Amino acid sequence: MGIEIERKFLVNLDKWFPPDNGLVYRQGYIYTISGNTVRVRIVGAQGYLTLKGKTKGQTRSEFEYSIPVEEAEEMLQTLCDRPFIEKIRYKILVGNLTWEVDEFLGENKGLTMAEVELTEENQDIILPEWIGEEVTDDLRYYNSYLVNNPFSQWRT
Amino acid sequence: MGIEIERKFLVNLDKWFPPDNGLVYRQGYIYTISGNTVRVRIVGAQGYLTLKGKTKGQTRSEFEYSIPVEEAEEMLQTLCDRPFIEKIRYKILVGNLTWEVDEFLGENKGLTMAEVELTEENQDIILPEWIGEEVTDDLRYYNSYLVNNPFSQWRT
Repeated sequence: MGIEIERKFLVNLDKWFPPDNGLVYRQGYIYTISGNTVRVRIVGAQGYLTLKGKTKGQTRSEFEYSIPVEEAEEMLQTLCDRPFIEKIRYKILVGNLTWEVDEFLGENKGLTMAEVELTEENQDIILPEWIGEEVTDDLRYYNSYLVNNPFSQWRT
Repeated sequence: MGIEIERKFLVNLDKWFPPDNGLVYRQGYIYTISGNTVRVRIVGAQGYLTLKGKTKGQTRSEFEYSIPVEEAEEMLQTLCDRPFIEKIRYKILVGNLTWEVDEFLGENKGLTMAEVELTEENQDIILPEWIGEEVTDDLRYYNSYLVNNPFSQWRT
């Protein structure tokens, strides 16, 4: 656990092809007054409970725990705010870094975003050719923002 | 996990004597917009992360996970709202039920409260002689309320 440093990019859909079937992620949030994040996530048969602090630069504290999937489902149904986020996540190794590409479903369909986790700020990275605009600092692309402001309703 | 049914009482300090040294509990909250509870607790060398739904009658959904104490401490320092709650908890078996008596410290000094967890609503219970007024339905006695409205500042 501890600190998470990551950069986020839009994906250029003309150049991006899924490497496999990916995994379906379903997740909900419990909104906090401080702006810290409490997230319940289900990936296949595994549940996760995650707490994240607010972002400072590219850095964010993160604590994630595996929990029984039945409990995650019960928490989604009884404790989490609606609607939920659903997406397919693909993982792609480029050089020595793993990129996570999220293809959003439901109200956020049309949005595909790539994230890479770094070991230090200002680390040099190789950008795959399907990488588009960087959105690391754009709060609209937070999953927790997309819940109430889905991509399909954005005016560009 | 699942559902918690409990009743809360004030303790009559003229009749109550601690059975042992008890255990020191230190806990903080991340306040949510929905009113659901996210709590980080440290008891000795063990950390806990707990999510609770809002109370309906005597019933409340609860999910509790053991976490490393260093992570609980880091979450208290970086994610939880201030101030924290500190108390000494004593456990006392009366009949076949375990009572938890909390002697609050710091800003809540002077408040001692007893809780008992039941297996069903309307269950018959034996009240120990040191039990005072029932406060199950009094929101002021929630730990999460006491954080910002400590007992020492109440006007009675």
